[in-house]
Amino acid sequence: MSTAGECVAPGSSIALVASVLERVDPSVFVITSFLAVVILTIMMVDKYHLLYHGKLWFEYLTTSVPTIEVPMTDAEAHDDGVKGEPVKTMQLVDPNDQTKINCYDPSTKQLLGQAKNMSAKEVEEILLKAKKAQEEWKQTTFAQRRMVLRTIQKYVVNHVQDICRVSARESGKPKVDAVMGEILTTCEKIRTVCEWGELWLRPEQRPTGPMMMHKSAWVEYVPLGVIVAIAPWNYPFHNAINHVISGLMAGNAVVGKVSEHASWSADYFGRILHQALKVNGHNPDLVATVTGMAEAGVALCTSPLVDKIIFTGSTPIGRKVMESAAKNLTPLVLELGGKDVMVLRHDVKLSNVLPFVMRGCYQNSGQNCVGVERVLVYESIYDEFLKQIVPKAKALRQGNPLASCGADGKVDCGSMIMPAQLQIVQALVDDAVKKGATLHCGGKINPGLNGQFFEPTVLSGITPEMNIFNQEVFGPVMTVVKVPNDDDQECIRLVNQSAFGLGSSIFTADDAAGLKIGQQFRTGMLTVNDFGSNYLIQSLPFGGVKESGFGRFAGIEGLRALCLERAIVVDKVSLVRTAIPTPIDYPIDMNKGFPFTESLVQLFYNENLFGKVKGIFGLIKNG
Amino acid sequence: MSTAGECVAPGSSIALVASVLERVDPSVFVITSFLAVVILTIMMVDKYHLLYHGKLWFEYLTTSVPTIEVPMTDAEAHDDGVKGEPVKTMQLVDPNDQTKINCYDPSTKQLLGQAKNMSAKEVEEILLKAKKAQEEWKQTTFAQRRMVLRTIQKYVVNHVQDICRVSARESGKPKVDAVMGEILTTCEKIRTVCEWGELWLRPEQRPTGPMMMHKSAWVEYVPLGVIVAIAPWNYPFHNAINHVISGLMAGNAVVGKVSEHASWSADYFGRILHQALKVNGHNPDLVATVTGMAEAGVALCTSPLVDKIIFTGSTPIGRKVMESAAKNLTPLVLELGGKDVMVLRHDVKLSNVLPFVMRGCYQNSGQNCVGVERVLVYESIYDEFLKQIVPKAKALRQGNPLASCGADGKVDCGSMIMPAQLQIVQALVDDAVKKGATLHCGGKINPGLNGQFFEPTVLSGITPEMNIFNQEVFGPVMTVVKVPNDDDQECIRLVNQSAFGLGSSIFTADDAAGLKIGQQFRTGMLTVNDFGSNYLIQSLPFGGVKESGFGRFAGIEGLRALCLERAIVVDKVSLVRTAIPTPIDYPIDMNKGFPFTESLVQLFYNENLFGKVKGIFGLIKNG
Repeated sequence: MSTAGECVAPGSSIALVASVLERVDPSVFVITSFLAVVILTIMMVDKYHLLYHGKLWFEYLTTSVPTIEVPMTDAEAHDDGVKGEPVKTMQLVDPNDQTKINCYDPSTKQLLGQAKNMSAKEVEEILLKAKKAQEEWKQTTFAQRRMVLRTIQKYVVNHVQDICRVSARESGKPKVDAVMGEILTTCEKIRTVCEWGELWLRPEQRPTGPMMMHKSAWVEYVPLGVIVAIAPWNYPFHNAINHVISGLMAGNAVVGKVSEHASWSADYFGRILHQALKVNGHNPDLVATVTGMAEAGVALCTSPLVDKIIFTGSTPIGRKVMESAAKNLTPLVLELGGKDVMVLRHDVKLSNVLPFVMRGCYQNSGQNCVGVERVLVYESIYDEFLKQIVPKAKALRQGNPLASCGADGKVDCGSMIMPAQLQIVQALVDDAVKKGATLHCGGKINPGLNGQFFEPTVLSGITPEMNIFNQEVFGPVMTVVKVPNDDDQECIRLVNQSAFGLGSSIFTADDAAGLKIGQQFRTGMLTVNDFGSNYLIQSLPFGGVKESGFGRFAGIEGLRALCLERAIVVDKVSLVRTAIPTPIDYPIDMNKGFPFTESLVQLFYNENLFGKVKGIFGLIKNG
Repeated sequence: MSTAGECVAPGSSIALVASVLERVDPSVFVITSFLAVVILTIMMVDKYHLLYHGKLWFEYLTTSVPTIEVPMTDAEAHDDGVKGEPVKTMQLVDPNDQTKINCYDPSTKQLLGQAKNMSAKEVEEILLKAKKAQEEWKQTTFAQRRMVLRTIQKYVVNHVQDICRVSARESGKPKVDAVMGEILTTCEKIRTVCEWGELWLRPEQRPTGPMMMHKSAWVEYVPLGVIVAIAPWNYPFHNAINHVISGLMAGNAVVGKVSEHASWSADYFGRILHQALKVNGHNPDLVATVTGMAEAGVALCTSPLVDKIIFTGSTPIGRKVMESAAKNLTPLVLELGGKDVMVLRHDVKLSNVLPFVMRGCYQNSGQNCVGVERVLVYESIYDEFLKQIVPKAKALRQGNPLASCGADGKVDCGSMIMPAQLQIVQALVDDAVKKGATLHCGGKINPGLNGQFFEPTVLSGITPEMNIFNQEVFGPVMTVVKVPNDDDQECIRLVNQSAFGLGSSIFTADDAAGLKIGQQFRTGMLTVNDFGSNYLIQSLPFGGVKESGFGRFAGIEGLRALCLERAIVVDKVSLVRTAIPTPIDYPIDMNKGFPFTESLVQLFYNENLFGKVKGIFGLIKNG
C-alpha cells in the first residue's frame, strides 16, 4: 500500500481525493458501492417498477375497502327461488307490452321476469347521463378508481355463490363453469388492472432524434369519454363487468348493452356496480346497462355521444356494427367468432391432455368464443385418442344446473342459451354426418329434457368439405380432424384453412417444436401445452384476425385503447425557443431557402461523412 | 485497520472472504464496484438500449449501402422539361380511352402525361403479386429491411432537387415547401424506423400474476401481410413512401393508391422503390402503386387479400371507406380532416410567433392535414396581431413554382391541386364575409394567373356561426378568431367547439400554463411553442379523434399496428406441466368441484388474510 497520503500537494484536488480514499476503511467502499448499485438500479432505472409497487403496497395496506350490501330478490337468492311452470312458447318481446322483454331460464323454460325493451330515446338519455358523470370521473385519481374496483372485488369474493347462481339461472350453465368463467376471470382482471393500470397509463417518453434534440416528446393517455360495450350472452356476469373494469380504470363511463337472451341477470349485476360507485361517493350514472332489441343496439352504434364501441358477438352482426359505426366514425374493437383449434401431436401423453380436450369442447356447453371447435389429432394417436375420449364424452351428465323444476344440480353439461342455436348446431352435425363424419355419441337435441339442451357430441373424420369444419358451432360438439402422417406442415395448413383466427393451442412433449409450429398459426392467441390460460393472464391482449375481428381488449393494448392517445411536444428548456430559420421565413429568400433546407437534409441524413460536412457548410453559407 | 486476516478459522467461508478483502488494495474495490454498476446497468437493465444501439452502430459502420440509378424522363429531369400549351378544359379520365387518366400540372394546366385507370381486375392482380412477394419478405431480417430503407434514403439525399422538382410539378408547390414537407419528413421517418423499428417490434414480456407464475407470457409482432395505403394528393412523394417505410420494416407488402390528382409523379417515385428492392435482391412486386378512380379504390377496400387499410383523406370519403371495409372486416386507420388551431396567448412575443402563423397557414398553400385552420388570438394582442400579420400576407408572392411557361420560380405560395377545391374555398370565404368577417387581403381566385391559384387570404372576426369556423378549408386562408378577455377557459371552449380533433399548438411565454391549457384541447397532437415539430419526431403516433378519424400511424403505435399482435403463453419449465385439477375434471365431483374453485378465488383474490387462509384449507380439503 503506498503512502501517497503523506505528500499531498495543496490545490491538487485529485491528490486530495486520493488521500481521502487512502484514509478510509476499505469496507466503506464496498458498502458504499453496493448501495450505489442498489439505489441506481431502483431510482434511475427501476425496470422492475419497485417504487411503483412499493407505493401500491402501501396503498393496499393502509386503506380499507368498504363493504356493500346488494339486496336480492327471491329468484336471485335461492337455487329453487324461481316459481312457475315452463312456458310453451318463448316470446322475447312481450306481445302485450312492446316496451318489455321476457327473460327465460334456458334450462327450464320458466319465465324469470322482464327487462326494459329500450327505445332509442331511452338509450340517448342513458348516454347523456353517462357523459355527464364522466366529466367528474375523469378527474379522479388512480387510487380512487382502484378503490371502486376493489369494492367490487370484495363483493365478488364474498358472494361467489350468489353470482354463480344468478349466472347459472340466466344461462343454464353448471355453477362450476360459472365460478371459473365468471368469477376467476373477473377477479384476475380486477387484480391485473389494479396492479398495472396506473403504470400502463403513465405518460410515455419518446426519443426525439438529432434534429429535435431540444424537444421533449411523450404520449399521454387521456380518458376517451363514453365507452359502449356490446356483450354476448355466454357469460352474463363477466361480460357485463369486463369492460367496466378497464373502462373505469382509464377514466371513462361505460354503457353496456347486454344480450336480449341475458337481460334478467343484468339488473342484479348492475346493482353491484352502482353500489360500489355510490359507497365511494361517485355518480352511479357512470356505469349503465342497456337492455333491448335492435333499436337500442343501433342507437348505441350510431350515437355521436359514444367515443368507442367494443363489440363481442357474431361475425355477421360485427359487420353491421362496423357499417353503423361508420356514420359517426366511432372507433371500434370487434371480437367476433372463432374456430379455435387444439392440436395434439404424436408425442403427447393422452391421459394428461384428454381433460383439456374435454374442457375445451364442453365447458359452458361449448359456448365460448375461444372454445375448442376443432381437435386436430396426429394420425399415429388418432385411433387411441378416439377410443379414450368417446367414453368420457358419453359419461357427461346433462341437466338443469340448479335445484329447481326437479333437477338435482348434478350436471356436467348445461343448456344452450339462444333458442335458435339448437337448430344451427343440429344442421351442422347433420351435414357432417351426411358427408361421411362418424357420430360417436350425442348428435341431437336432448329428448329427455324440457329445456334447450343439445347432447354432448363427438364427431370424427371431419374434413374441410363439411360445413362444420369452417363454421362456428358454439355448442357441445367435439369435432375431431386427423392430421395425416403426423405431418406438422399439413397441421399448419389445416389450422390456417379457416376464415377465423382467434385462439389456438398445441400440446406436445417438445415445447420448442410446439411453439415453432404454433407461431405459424394465423391466430391472435396461442398457448402451448395448456388451454385458456392466456385469459387468466390479463396483461395479455385478447383478440384475433381475419373474420374473428380486429382490435384488442385486455392487457396494455386494451387499456390504452380506451384512451385518447395524445402526442405532445414541448421545449426541453424554455430559454431555448424554436424559431423559423430566416431563409425559410416568408417572404422566402430564393437564393437561400432551398439550399439551406437541403443542407439540413445532408447534415442529418447523409450517411456519408463528406456529405454531412457539405451540409454544415451549406447551413453556414445560407443560414 | 484490524488484523483479522491473521486469525481465519478454517472452514469459515465468511471469515475467508473477509480475509481476502482485507489483503486487497482498496482501489480494487472501487474499480470493481464501478464496473459492477456499469455492467449491471448495461447487461441486466439496459433501459437506454445500449447493447441494441451498439449492434446498430456496428451494422452501419460495417455495411455499405448500394447506389441506385433511376432513369428520368425529360419532363421529370428539368424545371422547364414540360412542353405544350395549357389545356382549356381538364378531363381526368381520357374521353378517348377510359383506361387512362390525364395528369395535369395544376399551376400551368399543362398535360403532364397519362396514368393507368386501373380496373378491379388489375388491382386484384397487383394484390396477388404483392401477397406472393410478402411470403418471402416476411422471412427477411431487420438488417435486410434496414438496408432497403437505407438504399432509398441514400437515393433521396442525393436527389433532393429531382424529387422536389417532380413534386412541385405535380402539385404546384414551391420547392422550399417540397424539401421540407417531402424530403425532411421522409428522411426522418426512415431514420427513426431504422433506429428504433427492430426494438419496437421485439417480443414484449408480460407479467403473469400469482395464479400463472409457472407461465411465461409475451406479445409478439408478426407481419400482417398486405397493407393498402390510400393517399391524398398534397405531398405526392411523402404520401407515396410514408407507409412503405413502416410497412416494409414490419415485414409487409405495401400497395399504395395515389390520388387521381397526383398520379403522374407516382411512376417516378415507384421506380425509386422498385430499384431499391431489386438492387438488394428482393421482389419488386412487394411495393406497388395503384392509379385509378373509384373502381380501383373500392376494389382495394373490399378485397379479401388486404390485411389493413390506412386511409388519409377527407371525412366523407373516410366514412365510405369504413363502410366498404366492413365487407371483409378489414381493420383500418382513418386519418381524416382537421381544423387545427394555433393559439396565441396574451404573453407571446409577436415577432417570434408570426413566422409560425405564416408557415402554419400558407405552407403548401394550406393543403396540410395539420395546417393551421384557426388562429385563436387573445384579445389584448388581437389588434396588434392583425396590424403586423396582414402586411406579411400581402407580401406573399404567388405563381408557378418551376421555370416553365414564363414563370420565374420565385414564389412563396403555389397553386391548389384539386380543381374543385377552388370553389369550396371561395364559398367558405364568401359565407364568412357575408356573416360579418373582415377580409384583409386575397379572398378570391387569382385573376392574374392561368393555373389553380387562390390568393393568400386573411379573414378576421371569425365566429362559430360562420361555416369556415367548422369546415375544413384546405387552402391558403388564415382565419383569425378573437379570444375575449384573454380567457383561457373560453379559449379551450372555442378550440373544442369543432367536429375535428387532429393537431393543435399553443404559443405562450408560460410553458407550464401552455401545456396545461393545451392538454384540455381534444386533439390527438399538441405542440407548445412550436408548429409541426411533432411530425419531425417520428417516434410519436400521428392521428386524431372525432371527425379526424381514428387509429395511429408513425411511432411505436403505427409500426405495431402493421403487425398481427399475437399473445403467447408457454410453460416456464417443461418439467412442470399444467394439468386440469381432479375436482374439476369431467365428470365433475359435485361435492368438490365448486368448493375447490371457490377456494382458489379466496386464496388469490380475497384481500382479507383470514379469507386467504380459508382458501388454502378449502384447496387442501377439496383438492
